[in-house]
Amino acid sequence: MEGPKSGFINDQNVILSTDFYELTMGAAYYQYNLDNNIKEKDDIAVFDLFIRKYPKNRNYLIFAGLEQVIHYLQNARFTEKTIEFLRKKEVFKKIDSSFFDDYLPKFKFKLDVWAMREGNYFFPNEPIMKIQGPMFHAQLTETYILNVINYQTLIASKASRIKNVAQNKTLLEFGTRRSHSPLAGVYAARASYIAGFNGTSNVIADIELGIDSSGTMAHSFIQRFDNEMESFDVYNNIYGDNSILLIDTYDTEKAAKKISKFKNSIKAVRIDSGDLVDHSKKVRKILDENGCEKVLIVASSDLNEYKIKEILEKNAPIDAFGVGTELATSRDDPTIAGVYKLIEYNRKPKIKISEDKLTYPGKKQIYRIYNTQGEFKEDILMLDNEPVPSNSEALLIPVMKEGILITELPDLNNIQKYYIENIEKLPNKLKELKENQKNPLAISEELKRLITSLKNS
Amino acid sequence: MEGPKSGFINDQNVILSTDFYELTMGAAYYQYNLDNNIKEKDDIAVFDLFIRKYPKNRNYLIFAGLEQVIHYLQNARFTEKTIEFLRKKEVFKKIDSSFFDDYLPKFKFKLDVWAMREGNYFFPNEPIMKIQGPMFHAQLTETYILNVINYQTLIASKASRIKNVAQNKTLLEFGTRRSHSPLAGVYAARASYIAGFNGTSNVIADIELGIDSSGTMAHSFIQRFDNEMESFDVYNNIYGDNSILLIDTYDTEKAAKKISKFKNSIKAVRIDSGDLVDHSKKVRKILDENGCEKVLIVASSDLNEYKIKEILEKNAPIDAFGVGTELATSRDDPTIAGVYKLIEYNRKPKIKISEDKLTYPGKKQIYRIYNTQGEFKEDILMLDNEPVPSNSEALLIPVMKEGILITELPDLNNIQKYYIENIEKLPNKLKELKENQKNPLAISEELKRLITSLKNS
Repeated sequence: MEGPKSGFINDQNVILSTDFYELTMGAAYYQYNLDNNIKEKDDIAVFDLFIRKYPKNRNYLIFAGLEQVIHYLQNARFTEKTIEFLRKKEVFKKIDSSFFDDYLPKFKFKLDVWAMREGNYFFPNEPIMKIQGPMFHAQLTETYILNVINYQTLIASKASRIKNVAQNKTLLEFGTRRSHSPLAGVYAARASYIAGFNGTSNVIADIELGIDSSGTMAHSFIQRFDNEMESFDVYNNIYGDNSILLIDTYDTEKAAKKISKFKNSIKAVRIDSGDLVDHSKKVRKILDENGCEKVLIVASSDLNEYKIKEILEKNAPIDAFGVGTELATSRDDPTIAGVYKLIEYNRKPKIKISEDKLTYPGKKQIYRIYNTQGEFKEDILMLDNEPVPSNSEALLIPVMKEGILITELPDLNNIQKYYIENIEKLPNKLKELKENQKNPLAISEELKRLITSLKNS
Repeated sequence: MEGPKSGFINDQNVILSTDFYELTMGAAYYQYNLDNNIKEKDDIAVFDLFIRKYPKNRNYLIFAGLEQVIHYLQNARFTEKTIEFLRKKEVFKKIDSSFFDDYLPKFKFKLDVWAMREGNYFFPNEPIMKIQGPMFHAQLTETYILNVINYQTLIASKASRIKNVAQNKTLLEFGTRRSHSPLAGVYAARASYIAGFNGTSNVIADIELGIDSSGTMAHSFIQRFDNEMESFDVYNNIYGDNSILLIDTYDTEKAAKKISKFKNSIKAVRIDSGDLVDHSKKVRKILDENGCEKVLIVASSDLNEYKIKEILEKNAPIDAFGVGTELATSRDDPTIAGVYKLIEYNRKPKIKISEDKLTYPGKKQIYRIYNTQGEFKEDILMLDNEPVPSNSEALLIPVMKEGILITELPDLNNIQKYYIENIEKLPNKLKELKENQKNPLAISEELKRLITSLKNS
């Protein structure tokens, strides 16, 4: 297969997976520094990545996507192809040729990176990543980092809501066909796995990330055969106790009766339409009365956290939920307003005061405070040089130093384990399905003073 | 750079960019055919891809994504890596080893494909693609095709609404940072370009697809310098008449006055916050009074079709709109309910009658009927063997025959040209921003009879 069309983005061009203005700004920084003999060490910027506000009805968010960002920072390069593309752009005609001949070919990200742990919960206005380094480097990463963190965080946060209501039921991510591009399907599988999902239908997430993928049959499998029972026989003959039979193509309860001849030798049945509470109760009864008491019931069909909550409150005997569209698009609110803002340049704190778009200046740390029962109480945003509050946990952890990874990134199973243990500390009130809390983030007095002094300067 | 992590999906694994059930079904078809000595030519399926219902407030949709689907169908293969992954899956233990040793290594899609022209408008329940071929082939493509067509169609449809209200204003797609994965950013750029956008900020869309990318500066560029004017001077010195200066970092009108010293030597100013109507009027006045009458005004800041309509109704002197988040996520409704359903198997029409999920059986064509003024009147869904209605246009065009492309795919500029000319034929009523029409799709009497006979059988 030639060319990059399958995924468009590959090892040869990923550095250009960005907005063009990062490159016009970058080239301008290069030219300005060249003209004014400014060295990289005297051109150090610090950016915060934070979320301005919740998507609708959220009281917390789950951080995800760091591993893909780190991979990009370690590996992205200006290849010959990308450099020749840029060199030909008319807009760059006044940029010194050394930019294309020397600087870009040798370019590697040399950034210091602090980040929250993937799977941690957080709140608006908290820096979830802090990026420091030469201006060109720190600026160029903006779009890619925002893209990856915004989407994976959006989906991990949505998945966490579903996990909260589904508790110990099995949860499967089924959203690839409605996710926004094949790659979004992989990201959705990863992000929902972090927030406690058990598996996915996405096979790339399995071969590339090791998330168990599964799935059995569509209605087309049933329809291909002359009658429904023949399709079940064919399938069961091949897949035996791995079989999950789809029973709603014609008449759900009739199909449940038919397949009871398999007794407990199949794994599950799946119901994909109609009133899932009513069907699952009837099907459970049929299965139990016919020696299929170990056969599980899997439900799907435009499920989300609200529907699953209602289904379980009505005591539907469903063992596993396949959640697709609503999860992989975060359908009730498909965007997180993540932004990437300059907060320090050459050791001087910076502030942006555009209308309604204030940013917190200076290099900061977030400290998490717990009550005496070990439950989350609040976070405090403080300047880096302030004394550490007692009984607190610093949330931003050093990840890279001058482009080198300085911590071991946890594997996905450990991220999930951390998520599951950590989310226990979050009070139930914040896990409700509507926004009901003010942001539990305090701002230190020092930081408030800095904001006032910068606004007045 | 090693491995596939940048994009996860690449030429070596794209065949597995799918839901796992396509593979369990596929392997079951293989085994069943082997056991029963069924040849490929006696195992021919036909699937329709159609949209069940509109996203909110739509009266039509725009078809997009075909080129990426064709590329996949021409090029996707089971590589050694993917075959070894599948061979090790416990679930496939009863599948004959010839599947992994012979069938998969030699596999190439041998499908007949009919599709609408990219950029055409269409309505729910119309097959926008029809796929025919050996069951294994036709089934395996389901997830990938749905994913690509669903998303690009979603975005082209959203972009079309924005184009309708913005008319001849310049439209730029700025959504990459909020799109759902880096690849979604590229798709969003492509789909919005099809529906009449002028350009994008996404650089991959430029290097890989030739869509003009542009962009100038973020607030960080302003903040990096000691004062705002210095940043404008530095930028203008390098980019001259390509400069678009961002003027809302501190005080929009003060900045407009400052930059008027450049007279008409810069291209534009950009306003990214606050009341865009009020600011643009004030800024236009300042520019005009200070010899900058040729300097354009670009506006951005969470724009969508509703806001642009309002802004233009208030006569804001804005020349270009940058549209990001709301477009690239189709924020008001981020999903299209595209489905892929078996409608014929071995020349026998098939129907699915799960509750609320009826499908139209049999191989069909859509005919578009125009009134005497050449304006769209209605579409008629008919069985393939029915006589062609007079003065009608068949919308499904043969694209591939047994895996070979049999038509020349238009380039992006020609797709956009077709879109612009074709959408003129759609009555203005259907272009309003709320759903106000019943689906203008008629069903032929023959097709109705077939549905009745299959339901009763």
